Amino acid sequence: MFVPPERAGYDRTPVMYDPRGRILQILYARRAVSQGTPSCGILFKDGVLVAGRRKMSALLMPNRKVFQIDEYIVATFAGYSSDGIFLIEQARDRAATLRFVYGSDRPDVYLIARYISSIMHQATLYAGLRPLGVSIVIAGSDLSGPKLYFNDPGGSTVAWKAGIIGRNAQAGEEFLEHIFRSNGPESISLEDAIKYAIVAISVASGKMPSPSEIEIGCIRLDEPAKILTADHAEIKDLYDASIEIFNEWKSKHRRERGEEEEEAEEEEE
Amino acid sequence: MFVPPERAGYDRTPVMYDPRGRILQILYARRAVSQGTPSCGILFKDGVLVAGRRKMSALLMPNRKVFQIDEYIVATFAGYSSDGIFLIEQARDRAATLRFVYGSDRPDVYLIARYISSIMHQATLYAGLRPLGVSIVIAGSDLSGPKLYFNDPGGSTVAWKAGIIGRNAQAGEEFLEHIFRSNGPESISLEDAIKYAIVAISVASGKMPSPSEIEIGCIRLDEPAKILTADHAEIKDLYDASIEIFNEWKSKHRRERGEEEEEAEEEEE
Amino acid sequence: MFVPPERAGYDRTPVMYDPRGRILQILYARRAVSQGTPSCGILFKDGVLVAGRRKMSALLMPNRKVFQIDEYIVATFAGYSSDGIFLIEQARDRAATLRFVYGSDRPDVYLIARYISSIMHQATLYAGLRPLGVSIVIAGSDLSGPKLYFNDPGGSTVAWKAGIIGRNAQAGEEFLEHIFRSNGPESISLEDAIKYAIVAISVASGKMPSPSEIEIGCIRLDEPAKILTADHAEIKDLYDASIEIFNEWKSKHRRERGEEEEEAEEEEE
Amino acid sequence: MFVPPERAGYDRTPVMYDPRGRILQILYARRAVSQGTPSCGILFKDGVLVAGRRKMSALLMPNRKVFQIDEYIVATFAGYSSDGIFLIEQARDRAATLRFVYGSDRPDVYLIARYISSIMHQATLYAGLRPLGVSIVIAGSDLSGPKLYFNDPGGSTVAWKAGIIGRNAQAGEEFLEHIFRSNGPESISLEDAIKYAIVAISVASGKMPSPSEIEIGCIRLDEPAKILTADHAEIKDLYDASIEIFNEWKSKHRRERGEEEEEAEEEEE
Amino acid sequence: MFVPPERAGYDRTPVMYDPRGRILQILYARRAVSQGTPSCGILFKDGVLVAGRRKMSALLMPNRKVFQIDEYIVATFAGYSSDGIFLIEQARDRAATLRFVYGSDRPDVYLIARYISSIMHQATLYAGLRPLGVSIVIAGSDLSGPKLYFNDPGGSTVAWKAGIIGRNAQAGEEFLEHIFRSNGPESISLEDAIKYAIVAISVASGKMPSPSEIEIGCIRLDEPAKILTADHAEIKDLYDASIEIFNEWKSKHRRERGEEEEEAEEEEE
Amino acid sequence: MFVPPERAGYDRTPVMYDPRGRILQILYARRAVSQGTPSCGILFKDGVLVAGRRKMSALLMPNRKVFQIDEYIVATFAGYSSDGIFLIEQARDRAATLRFVYGSDRPDVYLIARYISSIMHQATLYAGLRPLGVSIVIAGSDLSGPKLYFNDPGGSTVAWKAGIIGRNAQAGEEFLEHIFRSNGPESISLEDAIKYAIVAISVASGKMPSPSEIEIGCIRLDEPAKILTADHAEIKDLYDASIEIFNEWKSKHRRERGEEEEEAEEEEE
Amino acid sequence: MFVPPERAGYDRTPVMYDPRGRILQILYARRAVSQGTPSCGILFKDGVLVAGRRKMSALLMPNRKVFQIDEYIVATFAGYSSDGIFLIEQARDRAATLRFVYGSDRPDVYLIARYISSIMHQATLYAGLRPLGVSIVIAGSDLSGPKLYFNDPGGSTVAWKAGIIGRNAQAGEEFLEHIFRSNGPESISLEDAIKYAIVAISVASGKMPSPSEIEIGCIRLDEPAKILTADHAEIKDLYDASIEIFNEWKSKHRRERGEEEEEAEEEEE
Repeated sequence: MFVPPERAGYDRTPVMYDPRGRILQILYARRAVSQGTPSCGILFKDGVLVAGRRKMSALLMPNRKVFQIDEYIVATFAGYSSDGIFLIEQARDRAATLRFVYGSDRPDVYLIARYISSIMHQATLYAGLRPLGVSIVIAGSDLSGPKLYFNDPGGSTVAWKAGIIGRNAQAGEEFLEHIFRSNGPESISLEDAIKYAIVAISVASGKMPSPSEIEIGCIRLDEPAKILTADHAEIKDLYDASIEIFNEWKSKHRRERGEEEEEAEEEEE
Repeated sequence: MFVPPERAGYDRTPVMYDPRGRILQILYARRAVSQGTPSCGILFKDGVLVAGRRKMSALLMPNRKVFQIDEYIVATFAGYSSDGIFLIEQARDRAATLRFVYGSDRPDVYLIARYISSIMHQATLYAGLRPLGVSIVIAGSDLSGPKLYFNDPGGSTVAWKAGIIGRNAQAGEEFLEHIFRSNGPESISLEDAIKYAIVAISVASGKMPSPSEIEIGCIRLDEPAKILTADHAEIKDLYDASIEIFNEWKSKHRRERGEEEEEAEEEEE
Repeated sequence: MFVPPERAGYDRTPVMYDPRGRILQILYARRAVSQGTPSCGILFKDGVLVAGRRKMSALLMPNRKVFQIDEYIVATFAGYSSDGIFLIEQARDRAATLRFVYGSDRPDVYLIARYISSIMHQATLYAGLRPLGVSIVIAGSDLSGPKLYFNDPGGSTVAWKAGIIGRNAQAGEEFLEHIFRSNGPESISLEDAIKYAIVAISVASGKMPSPSEIEIGCIRLDEPAKILTADHAEIKDLYDASIEIFNEWKSKHRRERGEEEEEAEEEEE
Repeated sequence: MFVPPERAGYDRTPVMYDPRGRILQILYARRAVSQGTPSCGILFKDGVLVAGRRKMSALLMPNRKVFQIDEYIVATFAGYSSDGIFLIEQARDRAATLRFVYGSDRPDVYLIARYISSIMHQATLYAGLRPLGVSIVIAGSDLSGPKLYFNDPGGSTVAWKAGIIGRNAQAGEEFLEHIFRSNGPESISLEDAIKYAIVAISVASGKMPSPSEIEIGCIRLDEPAKILTADHAEIKDLYDASIEIFNEWKSKHRRERGEEEEEAEEEEE
Repeated sequence: MFVPPERAGYDRTPVMYDPRGRILQILYARRAVSQGTPSCGILFKDGVLVAGRRKMSALLMPNRKVFQIDEYIVATFAGYSSDGIFLIEQARDRAATLRFVYGSDRPDVYLIARYISSIMHQATLYAGLRPLGVSIVIAGSDLSGPKLYFNDPGGSTVAWKAGIIGRNAQAGEEFLEHIFRSNGPESISLEDAIKYAIVAISVASGKMPSPSEIEIGCIRLDEPAKILTADHAEIKDLYDASIEIFNEWKSKHRRERGEEEEEAEEEEE
Repeated sequence: MFVPPERAGYDRTPVMYDPRGRILQILYARRAVSQGTPSCGILFKDGVLVAGRRKMSALLMPNRKVFQIDEYIVATFAGYSSDGIFLIEQARDRAATLRFVYGSDRPDVYLIARYISSIMHQATLYAGLRPLGVSIVIAGSDLSGPKLYFNDPGGSTVAWKAGIIGRNAQAGEEFLEHIFRSNGPESISLEDAIKYAIVAISVASGKMPSPSEIEIGCIRLDEPAKILTADHAEIKDLYDASIEIFNEWKSKHRRERGEEEEEAEEEEE
Repeated sequence: MFVPPERAGYDRTPVMYDPRGRILQILYARRAVSQGTPSCGILFKDGVLVAGRRKMSALLMPNRKVFQIDEYIVATFAGYSSDGIFLIEQARDRAATLRFVYGSDRPDVYLIARYISSIMHQATLYAGLRPLGVSIVIAGSDLSGPKLYFNDPGGSTVAWKAGIIGRNAQAGEEFLEHIFRSNGPESISLEDAIKYAIVAISVASGKMPSPSEIEIGCIRLDEPAKILTADHAEIKDLYDASIEIFNEWKSKHRRERGEEEEEAEEEEE
């Protein structure tokens, strides 16, 4: 990778701007995110889901890619897994605090997302820390309905209709934009949302992962969160239906996307 | 970007002057501001407003660009959104403190603006911190009438009649100066102020944003703040009226401004 | 600007001397002062005044250049306005402490000036801080009569008969020296002092600023401080009288000063 | 070793990303791990074991390579032994806390593994610390059955079926993958697991270590952990049986693996 | 100024020795002292005095150069005035502590001098501080008679019979050595001491300063300290008598000293 | 000494790995150890001893090389003597704590060795500290018998049968290995152990030191530690017997070892 | 002075080893010691003494070179006087603590010497401090007889029979070695010890200093310490007798030592 000379030196700490007003260490931390396995989130008619592709190998126990935060809140992340787990645990603590200290049965999802992004923001304010190398997708249903938030290494919290992060996220995003250009969350059913999530992850992965590699956490309005893999009886049919959508999208996009596919380096988690 | 040799090294920390007495990290933080989407503020006869252009996309929930600070106080910002939200929350806390601790029903707008700029100033005084990469426009009405303040990454608070920050702010400023050269706030109605704000943002944006992209927060003397987008029934007509003003101004300025328009890089928020 | 090689490296922190015993960061901070709009102070027969030129523009509310510290004390500054306001607020707090804690109705002006310069001095003693980029002129009347102090970024407090700081201060100083070479404060009336202040600021500015640009704060022995701009009824005649003095001085000095006038860079405040 | 120029400087502290989003000091700490003597862990039908090769010499007392953490929990590590012992002691303290403070007779293995990895993660978050140069394998049986976790210098905790770390771990991993590709832990007996562990370590070592060099700690469901060396009566036969498996595997893999075997530098422990 | 290469880098902090065992930042701080206006101190038969030359200008109020520390103790300094005043205030606090806490009517002069030099010494022990750029001469009379101490930026306290510091101190020192080579303090009267002080300062200044520029603080055994300028009635005759001594000395030394006189740079205070 | 370019910069702090996973400052601290006068330890049938060569000179009082830690525990060290004494005192404090706080009459030797190595390990974990430049040999007899531990600057504790540290330790180690290759501690008598220790030290020294230069501390099972020099009546005969063993070993090894003997630099202690 | 390239950079802080295991900042601090005026200490039959050469000049009061620490303890030092005085005061505090807190009438000399060297050692352990640039000789008589200790900038405490530090100490040491090669302290009388001290200092000084320049502090078994200069009646005769010994030694050593005598730089104290 070529480092242009004028950049040299401005990228050593998060408490330094370069002459163009950028904080390069935050940009680099985003590179760590963009090398993780893909994770996505989708709001639908009466709920919200997150999904991610987990790593499988003969010697590993199945890893979690989706985490329960509270009864009605789940999260997933892409990037450095140790930073991710650190924040997941912070989110769980915050949810417990809201639940027990403030006596809230349905902790506010935005408050938890903001709490996490405050931690991430602090890590960009002080010399001697580093921005956290992870982005977190938090989904949940609280008293005002389903919510989906994205937290960035820079410390921002953005509300999503749908989105995807991790390696090759751009490709998955194109698919989701294609869906959401003509539909709002209000016209998407849980079943559709699951299929779209599977396809978005598959598009970002360049192929359909095996059903057991895809983990999905979803919350319908007043039902507690469920976390399942795509080989679960409830989802298997939707997985099968996704294959067709994936192939259709792929054949449509093969020509333009073909060569761009990176030889995604597997340095993360 | 060319870095002149004599600057090299003086721009690594906010606690260092260059030989000309400048603190370069503050200048660089202002570059972050000048790359944000435009935000403006205008004092008028019996009130004050702030307005900004928010980012829209198929996959994003509508983002806030204008934030309520207290019943009679609103704010907007340009620059790093995570720094901005951090300060917005500080402003809200301060307003709550003034309201509840000091028992003030109409918290003093200057006190809140100064509180925020003190935080921003501290960040320029200590090694190991960075200037915050955001400018904040705070508007409100307190016991002595409507107020409009601008807070800079260097930590100053300046009282405005009208102003605009963010990408291409210069262009929008020219439009506002043209208006205020012949009029004081006392001769501008709420309706005019809204139109001028829409045009200023459009001029800085290089085109009329769609009505839903423009968010406006305004306070009339003794009415609580209202935050609306330009596609709201109360404002839609004013938006339509702005188109004409915008086109007139544009045709008048096309010749001189044409080539200067930057290919504004979208690296912020 | 040319940086002679032997200086390189000694100017990075206020806690380092160069081989000639100089603390270069303090010299650089003084450069920030010497780029501010001019401020002056003059002791006269029965009182003291400070005056400064404030920035005006169509879009700005009039800025303060002179600040009330206590009933009988005012101050002005040149340099980074956020550093200046920070110190002004410290001075006000100190005056309030002296007034309320120590029960002093006429707080001692030197104690306040020293308090401010202690803060400024501390900022030159510790790595990780920066010298404050501002000089402050404090004027007041206490139990032992009128006082005028100048605080420098290095942390010293100097008692003045008269003085001027900011851009092109040298030129204004020549005018004041011309006056004070033959007169002591005891032979100068309030009216004269105001005229001399207006002329000194005008000389430093290279032209007569408009009356509303000049702000004057004055204290007569037992009268509380008054802060007025030169377009105020009480002062307008003195402003008009100053024009003649200014022109006279200018024609006398044109030949030698002509080319030296810098293209004063407007980077401050 | 060649250091590519673009890397220079990004590898000085764990709180700095390189332009590709990597934290190089963590990668270097992993190099310390990959130079330790091999350690492995294997889950089997009704329990779990860890095993490692310890260093022997005429002048040394036999060193521990497997450590008891609690009645049902053992651990081994590869890398800097002083970092390893430090973490082993932390793990013991944590187990004692869980046991005595929380009154748990069978402390949760994941809680202990996470506690250790939190310490390792913290060491990657703050300037002035270094990532710990060790990876730890923790095995135990708690109320939900046998568990096997791997803790990395980056601070992650990964659940394993089987795995091996240390010098030439890749070679041992290939052997274990060969076993686990066709078998799950549920079809492996304690005896098989011990043999596989001995072979994996031997493969990584390039030859069969002497029986007294191999230390094994194993836990069957409700039996306290036992730590033995391979020359112990209970294991000796299994060691002998392993020789054949080792030779078979070696002859099969000689051709491709032959030259790659490093002249493993003995700089660790 | 030429910086020999072997020095480069050893002079950046007071907590670093160069290869010859020198702490260069202390040497540089002494350069700041050697650029101040001259100050001297002289022990005489029944007392002690300090004297210094103060800066005068049409626009300045007369500056102090001699400071009262306690009823029987005075001090003067050369170097950075803000460091000097800081230490003067510390000395006054210490004297007050000795007086009120320890109930000492005649605070011990050495204890105060040591207290000041301890502060100066601390500033040479810790990274992140700078040696103070000032030397202080403390004179007083306590229960064991008159005392004269010199405090150096390195933190030492030295007892003097007589001495002089500041710009061109060497020249003044030659004069004092000439006097003290043949006389001890016990053979010098107050009047002589004042004359010698005036001459020493004049020699260092290269010319007789005007009487009002010379400030003298003297203590006779049991009389409180008096601080006067040389135009005061009590001293004026001694000033006049000094002119002759000065001229005599000057004519005697003109030949050898002539060209060495520096174009003393006026960068201090 | 040649510093290979790829090493440059990785060796400035103990909290930095080089690209090969080494902590170079620890390696350098070991160089300090390897320049100390030799120290050794030997376990024997019913006890343990440490021995070292102390420095003698006409002007020095005899220096300690062996230190009593507790009634049954002794220690010796090689490397920076001020670091060594610092740790010896820590060990004594720890022994006293174990004895008095925990009521242990025979403090556990491992606990004391680990306490010392924890301190040494901490010094490798934090920027701003340095690894201690000393290795410590601790020997003692506790409730489970005689023990011998070696603590390294990296913070590890290793159990020894026998060992030697300091200048030219390798040569002494060869001798000890030769002894221990065919004998375990259980077949070595106290008298033999003393002779072997004297020879090992002599081999490392390149010649027999005088009897008074060799200090020996030994503990037999239930007898308190005794510290004697080799000119003491109890040992003198053993010293004489060692000469023969030394000469024999030397003549055997002269050919191969002859030229390697360094001109051991005497920079330590 | 030539700085060999491999040293560059390792000598910036006391918490860094060079590749040969040396802490260069400690070596440099010793250079500061070796430039001080000479100080020595000598144990004799029934007591101990320290002696040093003090600086004299027409303008200075006589400086102390020998300091009383307690009734039976004295000390002297060579190196930076402000570091020396700082430690002398610490030693006095420690003696007072031992005396009053522990109720010891004859404070243990080793405890005080160790206390001082602990402070000196700490200064070599933490970044941000500097080794103290002074060596201290402490002599005293406690319950176990006379003691003489030498404390080095590295933090070690060494027991001496006799020794000398400061400029040209080597030459003085040769003289003392000559004396002690054939005599132990037990055969030296107080009178001899004083003469040897005077000669050692004179040898290091290159000439006999005047009697008033030599200060001697001595303690006989149960007599309190006395500090006298060599012009005192009790010592004058011994001074005279020393001249002869000095001349004898000098003529004997002139040939070999002649040219080595440095033009000792007078940069210290």
